Amino acid sequence: MKVYDFRVSYELFERATQIVPNGIVQPRNPTFLTFGDFPCFIERAKGCKMWDVDGNEFIDYMCAYGPMIIGYNHPKVEEAVRKQMEKGDSFSMPSPVWVEYAEYLINLIPMADWAVFGKNGSDVTNFAIRVARHYTGKKQIVMANGAYHGTHEWSLPPTPGVPPEYQSHVPKFEYNELEDLERVFDEHKGDIAGVFLTPIRHDIMHDQELPAPGFFDGVRELCDREGALLLFDDVRCGFRFDIRGTHEYFGADPDIVCFGKAISNGYPLSAVVAKKHLMESARFIYFTGTHFHGAVAMSASIACLEEIKASGAIEKLNKMGKLLQEGLREQANSHGVRVVVSGPPCMPFMRFEDDPTYEKNRKFCGLAARRGIFLHPHHNWFVSSAHEEEDIRRTLEVTDECFRLMKQGA
Amino acid sequence: MKVYDFRVSYELFERATQIVPNGIVQPRNPTFLTFGDFPCFIERAKGCKMWDVDGNEFIDYMCAYGPMIIGYNHPKVEEAVRKQMEKGDSFSMPSPVWVEYAEYLINLIPMADWAVFGKNGSDVTNFAIRVARHYTGKKQIVMANGAYHGTHEWSLPPTPGVPPEYQSHVPKFEYNELEDLERVFDEHKGDIAGVFLTPIRHDIMHDQELPAPGFFDGVRELCDREGALLLFDDVRCGFRFDIRGTHEYFGADPDIVCFGKAISNGYPLSAVVAKKHLMESARFIYFTGTHFHGAVAMSASIACLEEIKASGAIEKLNKMGKLLQEGLREQANSHGVRVVVSGPPCMPFMRFEDDPTYEKNRKFCGLAARRGIFLHPHHNWFVSSAHEEEDIRRTLEVTDECFRLMKQGA
Repeated sequence: MKVYDFRVSYELFERATQIVPNGIVQPRNPTFLTFGDFPCFIERAKGCKMWDVDGNEFIDYMCAYGPMIIGYNHPKVEEAVRKQMEKGDSFSMPSPVWVEYAEYLINLIPMADWAVFGKNGSDVTNFAIRVARHYTGKKQIVMANGAYHGTHEWSLPPTPGVPPEYQSHVPKFEYNELEDLERVFDEHKGDIAGVFLTPIRHDIMHDQELPAPGFFDGVRELCDREGALLLFDDVRCGFRFDIRGTHEYFGADPDIVCFGKAISNGYPLSAVVAKKHLMESARFIYFTGTHFHGAVAMSASIACLEEIKASGAIEKLNKMGKLLQEGLREQANSHGVRVVVSGPPCMPFMRFEDDPTYEKNRKFCGLAARRGIFLHPHHNWFVSSAHEEEDIRRTLEVTDECFRLMKQGA
Repeated sequence: MKVYDFRVSYELFERATQIVPNGIVQPRNPTFLTFGDFPCFIERAKGCKMWDVDGNEFIDYMCAYGPMIIGYNHPKVEEAVRKQMEKGDSFSMPSPVWVEYAEYLINLIPMADWAVFGKNGSDVTNFAIRVARHYTGKKQIVMANGAYHGTHEWSLPPTPGVPPEYQSHVPKFEYNELEDLERVFDEHKGDIAGVFLTPIRHDIMHDQELPAPGFFDGVRELCDREGALLLFDDVRCGFRFDIRGTHEYFGADPDIVCFGKAISNGYPLSAVVAKKHLMESARFIYFTGTHFHGAVAMSASIACLEEIKASGAIEKLNKMGKLLQEGLREQANSHGVRVVVSGPPCMPFMRFEDDPTYEKNRKFCGLAARRGIFLHPHHNWFVSSAHEEEDIRRTLEVTDECFRLMKQGA
């Protein structure tokens, strides 16, 4: 089996360390993966494959950290983009695509009565908490321990350069544990503006967890009883489970849902949709950005979401993810290695059982990267509808070899 | 003179109000301009012109709120974009364009030793204050009264949905007044992390002010004496005064400079550049976003900045701006109307002298919009290098008519 060389990548990385903090700004710093065993720079990509600056080919299970749900450089999306680019993207007022797109999302997503758009997922999660605080007149936003809702101060763990006051009023509870959430509601009686949840637990360096039966209903009940809103951060999961939003897949009933990543198959765009009763409050929330009106990403999004529907992409990528998960479980068994394969098929993850620091996982994923399979040792993976059975087969050939090498103490 | 009709715009706006807070999210809400007298939706744009959904043509002096420095849909930029799009934009690791681009900016900007990239201007101004606070171990970021540094909580005035704690540690002083800045340093003795300044004062609903002679030197001295950093927010001015950054034009010596808007002639991109001594601190600052590595906007930026240099765009747009400013002053004089034309030629602004609520200005700009000239009654305007002498001439024909109509009590 061919083992890749990353000479050009690391020469370029060496140049980068001179002029960019960490060479590549965290958290995608190669030191975050397995230093030396991953490529640093990608030259081009198509479908589920990407090619690095050394000319190595990879089957990519990160999909640019989520966006590429129907595969890199999808002809339908690129065609819509080229068509809009002839007219333009950002103007001194929005394009009519703004209205078409808002109407499109509202027709697509049953709970949505209105919509607002940004560029980063963080733009819209931050907008959502402003709406919740303004609407309720309360301060506390509850989130789950270890959850990620973007780069704004409120949801980060204590981090250098950020005064602790900027991170106040965000009590935490344990995902899936309703009693723990009741404790938080008791401790902040009358001051909870909202509960922010991801549709599944997909924390870094953690097994993925599906919502427990009755969890979302229980949260909804608590929120209703206490006059708090239920906010969904569907940035990472969105459109992988159900085209109408992941809350529909799990039968949850949020007031606000935030989308990003897969919404446009690779064009910078994020969106909030929400129920009607919040629209008047939203009118008072300050929210803008130089390219928030950009029509190109909105055109890309309509093309992407239509293609997901027309091609049966969600079924396909979940089928591919299941083949991968089953294959990994079987291989681990046959090699006598204990692993935990977690997550829904569309966002699988694997770790070694006896591996508290994830060192074995970094080793394993590094071996796989050297052989053309791009997996992440800490972060959930993403499967796209461009992954075909032969890609999964090839992937499993490589992982089989990696399990073998791990046993040999590679 | 033909007076435009905005029927299609306002039908579309009526649809938008059903599904988007305020119809168009503030602050670009048409109610922010002159309701009924401005188009709401722009279909396409090219050079310095844009066409609304009613088919009306405008000479645009907002340039999409700044980005379009060499004109909409510039062939050199679009060519670079198409070329990069064939390879892709966001991947699971950055493209080599990341390194080329960082090197390009550092070679272009003399004070720059390293660079980091985001999508919104706010992304990088917020990163900059995290670096300043971490590097100095101090909390206070001083900014000027009325200045705008983006949508993050720290720099906004008190705003709905934002707890006051999120806006703490940001004392204000009066732009251009060194003694007032000394007062702030005294009041927060030993706790000032940095002073954040725009290269000119370009606050909304305010005459624009150039930095007073000696102002930046005085700020630098104070910062050095007190162990604080000098941060420049060049998002709005950047590349309009000097290709090396506006600090070079004014002979200022900042530690960090933030860019956005004109950096890429219309592709979502922002950048921080900074001096070497801050690089180690920057390594610890959390900073990421789904498309922060996108290669397309970086390719667009290199093409844009090269074209600015090759075409003499800065000289050209300042010459055009000067023609406009002089023309407006002459016209106002000849009509016996007292106006204040302020700002540098590349970012002009005009208001009526006896007009504290800017009502006259809204009226005037509305009359101009109805006749094909897109000016903003509250916000500084932008001139691009695609504005030609005949565009300025046509603009002045319209403004002459608008002054006449104002006198008639239109």
